[in-house]
Amino acid sequence: MADLDSVLGCLDLNLDRSVERLSALLRIPSISTDPAYGEQCRLAAEFLAGDLGAIGFEAAVRETPGHPMVVAHHDGPHGSPHVLFYGHYDVQPVDPVSEWKTGPFEPVVETMPDGTKRIVARGSADDKGQLMTFIEACRAFKAETGGLPCRVTIFLEGEEESGSPSLNPFLDANREELSADVALVCDTNMWNRDTPAISTGLRGLVGEEIVVKAASRDLHSGYYGGAARNPIHVLAKILADMRDDAGKITIPGFYDGVEELPEDVKKSWEGLGLSDESFLGEVGLKVPAGETGRSVLEQTWSRPTAEVNGISGGYTGEGFKTVIAAQATAKVSFRLVFSQDPDKIRAAFRQFVEDRLPADCSVEFHPHGGSPAIQLPFDSPVLQKVRTALSDEWPNPAVMIGMGGSIPVVGEFKNRLGMESLLVGFGLADDAIHSPNEKYEMSSFHKGQRSWARILAALGEG
Amino acid sequence: MADLDSVLGCLDLNLDRSVERLSALLRIPSISTDPAYGEQCRLAAEFLAGDLGAIGFEAAVRETPGHPMVVAHHDGPHGSPHVLFYGHYDVQPVDPVSEWKTGPFEPVVETMPDGTKRIVARGSADDKGQLMTFIEACRAFKAETGGLPCRVTIFLEGEEESGSPSLNPFLDANREELSADVALVCDTNMWNRDTPAISTGLRGLVGEEIVVKAASRDLHSGYYGGAARNPIHVLAKILADMRDDAGKITIPGFYDGVEELPEDVKKSWEGLGLSDESFLGEVGLKVPAGETGRSVLEQTWSRPTAEVNGISGGYTGEGFKTVIAAQATAKVSFRLVFSQDPDKIRAAFRQFVEDRLPADCSVEFHPHGGSPAIQLPFDSPVLQKVRTALSDEWPNPAVMIGMGGSIPVVGEFKNRLGMESLLVGFGLADDAIHSPNEKYEMSSFHKGQRSWARILAALGEG
Repeated sequence: MADLDSVLGCLDLNLDRSVERLSALLRIPSISTDPAYGEQCRLAAEFLAGDLGAIGFEAAVRETPGHPMVVAHHDGPHGSPHVLFYGHYDVQPVDPVSEWKTGPFEPVVETMPDGTKRIVARGSADDKGQLMTFIEACRAFKAETGGLPCRVTIFLEGEEESGSPSLNPFLDANREELSADVALVCDTNMWNRDTPAISTGLRGLVGEEIVVKAASRDLHSGYYGGAARNPIHVLAKILADMRDDAGKITIPGFYDGVEELPEDVKKSWEGLGLSDESFLGEVGLKVPAGETGRSVLEQTWSRPTAEVNGISGGYTGEGFKTVIAAQATAKVSFRLVFSQDPDKIRAAFRQFVEDRLPADCSVEFHPHGGSPAIQLPFDSPVLQKVRTALSDEWPNPAVMIGMGGSIPVVGEFKNRLGMESLLVGFGLADDAIHSPNEKYEMSSFHKGQRSWARILAALGEG
Repeated sequence: MADLDSVLGCLDLNLDRSVERLSALLRIPSISTDPAYGEQCRLAAEFLAGDLGAIGFEAAVRETPGHPMVVAHHDGPHGSPHVLFYGHYDVQPVDPVSEWKTGPFEPVVETMPDGTKRIVARGSADDKGQLMTFIEACRAFKAETGGLPCRVTIFLEGEEESGSPSLNPFLDANREELSADVALVCDTNMWNRDTPAISTGLRGLVGEEIVVKAASRDLHSGYYGGAARNPIHVLAKILADMRDDAGKITIPGFYDGVEELPEDVKKSWEGLGLSDESFLGEVGLKVPAGETGRSVLEQTWSRPTAEVNGISGGYTGEGFKTVIAAQATAKVSFRLVFSQDPDKIRAAFRQFVEDRLPADCSVEFHPHGGSPAIQLPFDSPVLQKVRTALSDEWPNPAVMIGMGGSIPVVGEFKNRLGMESLLVGFGLADDAIHSPNEKYEMSSFHKGQRSWARILAALGEG
């Protein structure tokens, strides 16, 4: 604990200098999706590899067919666990530039009327500020103790904002090197300004496009209306049948692998005090639309869904056309939880559609991706350590939350490297990531560094 | 009958000259929808007014804000009925020109391998050839008898193929002049080559666009999926609810005003020998999709429908986007029969939608036209006379059929002038109206003229 205290003190003392280092990184416009910024992406990677080398990591810029990766290794005490830290150095485009109050790549520290400070720049929260919290914690440990409390690999990607095309081949080619006991992924938010969060569950996703076909051509509804099968009706009926009046999905076998939340987790979610109204009110809604009797947090974090993301058929322009369409299309996706099997869900949905196809209709299916849910065991010892470490740093204890969406890298770590991930980040919902005037709270940056110091210390205790 | 025989003989004798007159009219490219052909439309009107004047009609080209009308009057014997003949001199565009085997406005008489002849040109069947059958009948009556067997007004429109924008104001401004005992509308088909048809029923139409709205913006289905109301689901459910498993429409009060066919009409339709397979087979279908237990002719001629003509919502482009749309839209139309009230149907549908709207959703309605069905009384004496006259001319007796679609002018004649219409035409299903290589059978043109001579004679008998 003496060590940790001095490390924390070092972080406090050096906050200004850490802001300067982050600012230097933020000045590099590493927009991965725009080929014009390829050289800038490389510069950001080199900056980070250089900084990690200066701390004492064995660090390298590693080539890919796209933007390079940064991989850096540092030993830990004998027998200490091996953790892999993941972040990304690339950033989103900055359009519309005219809406930025200051230059997107000219970081400024702004002081708000309430006295809080924030760092404003593209990438400040997503993800340069976040990844530097971990690097600063490592730097302070090295400065104060000469080493790190556990073995650390830092793995920084440069294509996260452009679909990560090089990620999977790189993981496969470097499986041994990158496999650790656990991954620490720093690209998520806190629950709120005072409450740190660990995301323990991420829903999976199955996408499926269906095309229902009837007549061999579009028909005039005057001549054929009443006698010809209308594929929009067929499609509407199938989609309507997918859910019952209680919001339950009716596809046979759909709930196989879905578990109920442990009672304590459910209670802790209730304790977050998020009302249905406040969650939905922001987007003009009030009443949870999912399974009756479940809170919005359950509905979005721990329950599966069947959503229609798009539908089209017939005449959709201005005015009116009395046509009976030859075909109608829907894009349907399923969010999966716990151990629901994407392949089984897809097959069950297809069967469900086939079973409802009337005479004269055929259907085409086009798959669009499928990934299982990620669910960290709630009783994992690592999870408990991180939870305690975070709770020690922040005003409120850390909460374990779910995430409604997917973070592909977490699935790939699990599938390709057999490695679970702990998602710990210090972003806030109003950070405006992907938008003009992105910011990162100074408290996120500072206490984020301190949080990682505590976590490294806790994990090193073995 | 002596008079009629000589009139028919005159028509036989002058067939070649009538083809020449029709050809002269067909050479005028009176495409109403393209402003470049405005002068040609006027030329066609002047040609017809001139021809009718030469026969002995008091004929005039009458101005409108768009293309002119032709109105021509001729007296009949004292106490004879007054009939109004309707046709249109404008034609459809000719694209794609490259698919025409001969120039669209260079009419040719083609002899087929089986010896039948046809006149090929844009407008030959729709509607110049058809309207000339009536004018030729009048010409022959005048030549042989010096007069017409009943009072005749000929009313020719020049905007039928471009939405008839001037029709209603013209009818309203000339109500007295155009009101007759009955209208004869010549713009429809025979049942088949040997069987003339009188359309006695036309379905009405109510169009309605609905927009179901939920959240105030498009949402990410990861964050909100399961908790946020998806307007595509809501819309699909409403549309699916509109019909039960037997194809019956479930909107309360929807069938008010719907009558069962008289038994003899039903039998005569069965006698037409049109199987479900042959009607639907042409468009790749087999099984009638409407109310169970009713033939395709009933389903399309005498039963109402509720069809979705278009639907759209969410992401409909290539690939996939995990979005929950803020709104979803459907264009819905109802075909009406007998005395169904368009206003009541619209109101009932809106109520049906409102009743199914869950919390957090709103709906917008946009009306798109509404017209009641037209149903000529099956026991009308005029109808019986026309039926007999047609049966005398053709190999098979005339059949009374329905029409699934609407012909707006028929509704306007009824609503604005209080005048019923008899729809008698000599087109065939393969005439390729609106398509390249439009043709009109010589038998249609010749026996069409003879048919009108018989009809005029029959109506004049009082």
